Amino acid sequence: MLSVEEARARIVGPLRPTPAETVSLPEAWGRVLANPLHARLTQPPADVSAMDGYALRAEDGQAGARVAVIGHAPAGRPFPGQVGQGQAVRLFTGSVVPEGADCVLPQEEVDRDGDSIAVREAARPGRHIRRTGQDFRQGAPLLPAGARLGARAIGLIAAANHPWVAVHRQPRIAILATGDEIVLPGEPLAVGSIVSSNAHALAGLVRAGGGIPLVLPIAPDDSAAIASVADRLSGIDLLLTTGGASVGEHDLVQTSLATRGFALDFWRIAMRPGKPLLFGRLGDVPVLGLPGNPVSAFVCAFLFLMPALNRLCGLTNDALRSVEARLTAPVAANDRRADHLRAALTPDPAGTLVATPFDRQDSSLLLLLANAGCLILRPPHAPALQAGANVPVLRLDLDGL
Amino acid sequence: MLSVEEARARIVGPLRPTPAETVSLPEAWGRVLANPLHARLTQPPADVSAMDGYALRAEDGQAGARVAVIGHAPAGRPFPGQVGQGQAVRLFTGSVVPEGADCVLPQEEVDRDGDSIAVREAARPGRHIRRTGQDFRQGAPLLPAGARLGARAIGLIAAANHPWVAVHRQPRIAILATGDEIVLPGEPLAVGSIVSSNAHALAGLVRAGGGIPLVLPIAPDDSAAIASVADRLSGIDLLLTTGGASVGEHDLVQTSLATRGFALDFWRIAMRPGKPLLFGRLGDVPVLGLPGNPVSAFVCAFLFLMPALNRLCGLTNDALRSVEARLTAPVAANDRRADHLRAALTPDPAGTLVATPFDRQDSSLLLLLANAGCLILRPPHAPALQAGANVPVLRLDLDGL
Repeated sequence: MLSVEEARARIVGPLRPTPAETVSLPEAWGRVLANPLHARLTQPPADVSAMDGYALRAEDGQAGARVAVIGHAPAGRPFPGQVGQGQAVRLFTGSVVPEGADCVLPQEEVDRDGDSIAVREAARPGRHIRRTGQDFRQGAPLLPAGARLGARAIGLIAAANHPWVAVHRQPRIAILATGDEIVLPGEPLAVGSIVSSNAHALAGLVRAGGGIPLVLPIAPDDSAAIASVADRLSGIDLLLTTGGASVGEHDLVQTSLATRGFALDFWRIAMRPGKPLLFGRLGDVPVLGLPGNPVSAFVCAFLFLMPALNRLCGLTNDALRSVEARLTAPVAANDRRADHLRAALTPDPAGTLVATPFDRQDSSLLLLLANAGCLILRPPHAPALQAGANVPVLRLDLDGL
Repeated sequence: MLSVEEARARIVGPLRPTPAETVSLPEAWGRVLANPLHARLTQPPADVSAMDGYALRAEDGQAGARVAVIGHAPAGRPFPGQVGQGQAVRLFTGSVVPEGADCVLPQEEVDRDGDSIAVREAARPGRHIRRTGQDFRQGAPLLPAGARLGARAIGLIAAANHPWVAVHRQPRIAILATGDEIVLPGEPLAVGSIVSSNAHALAGLVRAGGGIPLVLPIAPDDSAAIASVADRLSGIDLLLTTGGASVGEHDLVQTSLATRGFALDFWRIAMRPGKPLLFGRLGDVPVLGLPGNPVSAFVCAFLFLMPALNRLCGLTNDALRSVEARLTAPVAANDRRADHLRAALTPDPAGTLVATPFDRQDSSLLLLLANAGCLILRPPHAPALQAGANVPVLRLDLDGL
């Protein structure tokens, strides 16, 4: 049986990011930059005022002095002349500082009287001026390829004057649920029927990872029906199956796909929940066969599909990052299979994360999974731990999961 | 000047969640449940096998015993008869345990020989059986109103047999950028022009908060043009403006909207960046007027718009949660305005979060904002802190921000 880390490396290693597409700036939110992005202008493009106030020569701005106001310059309409000795120009935040002036006096620090101002607080050279290019200069690198674009990055790209952005296209993930007993939610149920939940949970996970899910019609436990999915993989970046990855007589995915040239890489991992995980290729399309138990399917998808999605999306940082939490209850020594205990996760009054493993860890308990705040990571042969010990956990209490 | 907390309470307090709409299960991912959700069936609906194996009477399953296999029952097709003394039925994971049997022997623990099995490891009553309703029972509450639906919740709702879900409709947030100097990205730039970045960054933030942004055409510094937005608020849950919230002559938002019955609540907050924050109402529509500086606009939107969006979306937990981080550099004592220092945030080798405030904190530096991992919270009159001290921070290194 493979270790979790080795299995992940074999799944993710050969994957390549999807090619780029051009999207408009608002469409780029949440997407991953395909090329480094450079500034198309200098920001600010000139020395500008940081305040509403008056531009003048600092030497004229002594407390008590009176200075003539010779004009005004709203942001966007620079003053066309020069500021001479004993003169000032009314400015606003963002206004270009006119030639001749070397500082700005905020309006709160002067008294205006008709066409002149009386200085209340002494000016200093350079004060309240934002210098040309102090944010960025034309041609400067702003964002690297592989960055996921959030609201701030979108604002930065706009400020750098890009209306269009090259991003990796969203990976398309086909999801095939198999099993005679599986029916869609709301459809008539026979004795022994199970409502299809994995495909829909996995579709949500695909969306959380930035992909586009395609939920295929449920395949019965029929070799020809399962094999025919191989004919429907055009434009698909990865095929997920759920159910049928174990060794039972009705676990047909592997044998059915084998008739269409499925190349098996591995099918067992030393982990719990979720030992029977199938991985291989149908032509160019990677196939990840998840267990049928909903908890096993989710945990395996979280551990293996999410990093695969990150890589396909073009993210440069695709490690699953654990954080430390303090146990509130003891945990037993682990056997040779890496375990992933479902647990509540809360901050204690000092802000430290505290994890409480659930008493029941059966891989069929979907309600407990939905309530879990984290997975406690228990490596193979990890020793027993007392309450109060620190453990690595993978957080589940994040939007989208 | 109001405190940040008081301002937030006055903005969020009067807001009510949007009404419900019915969406299909796959559409419900990322949405907020409008009503508590109950199970429409019992899961599992009968005692089912947790393994691929054989159902029998535990008393027949002694090590070395031989038992006759009288039939098989794939998941979804229950065995119609009874299991008698000395008999077993072949089962698979999820198969209904037939009447008469009280345990399951995993296939790894028997040797099959034609129509019988030889028991290798002794059976125990109840072993490897998932009991009726051990996940949930029909009518049981599964998810509360106000829950944001991630992948696991979607799976749970599917398993509970709901094809449709009632969720709060997404709040629609109109965004108005004002200023003669503002032009759209990619449009011709005159001397003194500034590319519109706030509206697009805010649109991303609205999406991150689960809302639908409507970016209105840029309004020039013209009272009639700004006032006319009051005619375009049909179907809008909140109006954001950016620019024009200060006291300069070209800060026309407040006076322009006053001509259409704008009821001002407050317009100054004891905070940095972003003192000039305007809040009031145009008829039923709350109006949040953000500063024009991009960093001020983002920080104010993060502190005030996000909680407002959470409330409008129907989330029951809408507190901005800070976490503790350790300073790598000293910070100066604060004045009477709450400060929000842009900082890098990284875990140290032990996993502790470490915050490094940027040297430059000017509210025009969008590139630094885009690179920030957190905002260090500095309450009014907070004392100076040395490197190594713990500070509360608001994380920005999350998807969507």
